[in-house]
Amino acid sequence: MRLAPLLLALLVSLPAAAQQPTRIPQAALDTAAQLRETALADDTGWKVTESLTTEVGPRMAGSEGDARAVAWAKAKFEELGFDRVWTEPVTFPKWERRGQSAEVLGPHSQKLVVIALGGSPGGTVEGQVVRFPDLESLEKAEPGSLKGKIAFIDYRMERKQDGSGYGMASRIRGGGPSAAIRAGAAAYVMRSAGTDNHRVAHTGGTRFAEGLTPIPSAALSNPDADQLARLLALDPSTRIRVSLDCGWNGEYTSQNVIGEITGASRPDEVVLIAGHLDSWDVGTGAIDDAAGIGITMAAAKLIAAAPQRPARSIRVVAFANEEQGLHGGFAYARAHTDELVKHAILAESDFGAGRIYGFDAGVADHAKGAIEQIAGALAPLGVEWMPGQGSAESDILPYTWAGAAWAWLGHDGTDYFDLHHTEDDTLDKIDPKVLAQNVAAYTVFTYLAASAEGDFGSSPERAHTPSW
Amino acid sequence: MRLAPLLLALLVSLPAAAQQPTRIPQAALDTAAQLRETALADDTGWKVTESLTTEVGPRMAGSEGDARAVAWAKAKFEELGFDRVWTEPVTFPKWERRGQSAEVLGPHSQKLVVIALGGSPGGTVEGQVVRFPDLESLEKAEPGSLKGKIAFIDYRMERKQDGSGYGMASRIRGGGPSAAIRAGAAAYVMRSAGTDNHRVAHTGGTRFAEGLTPIPSAALSNPDADQLARLLALDPSTRIRVSLDCGWNGEYTSQNVIGEITGASRPDEVVLIAGHLDSWDVGTGAIDDAAGIGITMAAAKLIAAAPQRPARSIRVVAFANEEQGLHGGFAYARAHTDELVKHAILAESDFGAGRIYGFDAGVADHAKGAIEQIAGALAPLGVEWMPGQGSAESDILPYTWAGAAWAWLGHDGTDYFDLHHTEDDTLDKIDPKVLAQNVAAYTVFTYLAASAEGDFGSSPERAHTPSW
Repeated sequence: MRLAPLLLALLVSLPAAAQQPTRIPQAALDTAAQLRETALADDTGWKVTESLTTEVGPRMAGSEGDARAVAWAKAKFEELGFDRVWTEPVTFPKWERRGQSAEVLGPHSQKLVVIALGGSPGGTVEGQVVRFPDLESLEKAEPGSLKGKIAFIDYRMERKQDGSGYGMASRIRGGGPSAAIRAGAAAYVMRSAGTDNHRVAHTGGTRFAEGLTPIPSAALSNPDADQLARLLALDPSTRIRVSLDCGWNGEYTSQNVIGEITGASRPDEVVLIAGHLDSWDVGTGAIDDAAGIGITMAAAKLIAAAPQRPARSIRVVAFANEEQGLHGGFAYARAHTDELVKHAILAESDFGAGRIYGFDAGVADHAKGAIEQIAGALAPLGVEWMPGQGSAESDILPYTWAGAAWAWLGHDGTDYFDLHHTEDDTLDKIDPKVLAQNVAAYTVFTYLAASAEGDFGSSPERAHTPSW
Repeated sequence: MRLAPLLLALLVSLPAAAQQPTRIPQAALDTAAQLRETALADDTGWKVTESLTTEVGPRMAGSEGDARAVAWAKAKFEELGFDRVWTEPVTFPKWERRGQSAEVLGPHSQKLVVIALGGSPGGTVEGQVVRFPDLESLEKAEPGSLKGKIAFIDYRMERKQDGSGYGMASRIRGGGPSAAIRAGAAAYVMRSAGTDNHRVAHTGGTRFAEGLTPIPSAALSNPDADQLARLLALDPSTRIRVSLDCGWNGEYTSQNVIGEITGASRPDEVVLIAGHLDSWDVGTGAIDDAAGIGITMAAAKLIAAAPQRPARSIRVVAFANEEQGLHGGFAYARAHTDELVKHAILAESDFGAGRIYGFDAGVADHAKGAIEQIAGALAPLGVEWMPGQGSAESDILPYTWAGAAWAWLGHDGTDYFDLHHTEDDTLDKIDPKVLAQNVAAYTVFTYLAASAEGDFGSSPERAHTPSW
């Protein structure tokens, strides 16, 4: 019995051990070095990002802006000279936000800045607020102990370069409402999952565990959470009114919009780079994720104009409805199940437009030398090779769970959660020079991955279940 | 004829020349040095500011919050142990804001963040936007040339330590609507008079010239002004809808709330220090001007607890309705016309809670030596004596126009207009340590001015008309 895991490990590792190492030819490295300089001086990424955020603006999945964004993306791929442009349908339940407000009741009456969480039902609730410092303490509340009350998780997200503070904050956003319901609460509010101190609350999707009746669930801006905490310290019987006008409304079919630059010698194999086309309804989705669309469209366009096209095709995917549950990513993985091995490697840019500082990849052992070569070509951009530090981002996750190789080009996220999912996510927050560095990094990676002799190990045998 | 001005100058200067120089006794300087250290370690200013912003919150003149603020101020003066506490009525027309929205119409449809200017009428206007880079260019527009259109002044305010960028920005806010009406416009929008890049628009009062029919007038947040400018560059026929629900609604009587610490030997003479109690309805009026209330209440309280009380009384005024036209300041000047010479000197803190970096005063020549002594006592706080650089602030202006001497304790305003008149003006923007420096500076100035032997020249003979 104890030998079984060892045998399995041997079986899995044998083919890799037998395989020739993947290598990047020197000619490709030379071209990539030129492309890197070209990209740093090019403003295509900026222009695409400006165009999407200005001409379309907000584009929440299922909204009128979603349809305009799909039309925009098709037109933009064509304008940029992609060889093939097409769409693939993505169907999902439609959630609508029509309005929201909150206020303190009684002698300290005042308005609170609040935003409904995506997936919340509508409704107006007045009740005493009970403050919890974290998710764990709310989860420990006695069933029924919050009957008629409003649960408030007052957890302040940590600022980190790699955005790791979002782990706990997003668990509170996703799991807080169900914990509140189990304790009997009539509504749920949380301190925004954000690191700023502006009066713009951070939205984002939540979910309700099976069998629970959803309750109105919303986030307060950080200054409003401060204020509510102070008022509760003065008077623990403080009551608020939360009024949300939002909810589910049927189904909607949007599109993953795809543009491809045809490879020179292995056109049926692809390197897939991506951003997501949808945004939340607040802000114009500049860092989340017009930047990702701008970076990847620009990288592919620069590669198309290179003196020597790479062997493989470059596929840029503008994913539909990332925000409400990776719907575009799951649709892509389902639609392309049988083509997994034709996808050499995938990378998505969905962490803003900060400087790219780190590089990592999830590839088979025989491809690690090629990854080291790519890391060397990225180093002049100030990008550090950080083996074991990165992970695939958002929409490409379902395909990586199916076994696809992935790369991580890590943006500096120190300020990302100042803006994420707020009204403040607008074009002015992006530095065009830093965005050009992002484009340069994606251009170098994509060109080299598409030029590699040998694969990166995409295979159904690498399929796995996500760890959470 | 040419001798007349010279004779007049002689007449005016003779009494001053004959007067003994005003001096601060050494004992007072010693006490002030102790008070300075006490104030730096004291948190009264912070606690008062926290209390007003938390327990009352927004308190626009004429609102329900205004009445609560008056009650709060009386109670707070009493709680702090002031010897006398009273109120004086201030009557003004009441302006109400009920709501506002704006959106781009047509193929680039999207919401714009907008806020009605104080004094604007309500109304909904749809029209083509005509952009002007500054007030002058709008003033030059041909009468009738903007018929049915919406005038947009896209002027970006400059960031300055002394806040001098506000001069032009506030002229645009005050004068833009009338210029727009003269050109025939149906509505007026402006880039916010603010230096931030957040989606919170800056309100503030406007006015309409005699004989003009007011039009809906509003400010866009800076990112929204950027967006509108980009859309106009793409398509000069861009149309927007502006919808304001606001307007005048009768009269309201609020109160100047006054607390006094009785002087030891000349109790009928006062040094008046002040902040204003009202705020705009957005934000909780932390930097504008709960800080001014906190600083001046704390300074007087610290002086009351000093081992040696100063000769003169310390009068702290929490002025009503500064924001909509210095109503509290004018009411005070009218009510105390006959007591001008009893007001030794006045100072108001109405420029936030940044570090106090400069000191200046408007006094008679015979008092300039005393001002230099006070400057010396302020120097250890990092406050520079800047003769000719300062000016009286807000509500004390009417009384200085009537001839009262004044002092300026200048706050660093580099970041002030990031927050001024927005939702973002909340307590978290104030650094308690810097606020204690502010309190220390006011304490030192006030104690020494109240201890001076001789006056600062307050006199009806110094009456003058404001320069604007």
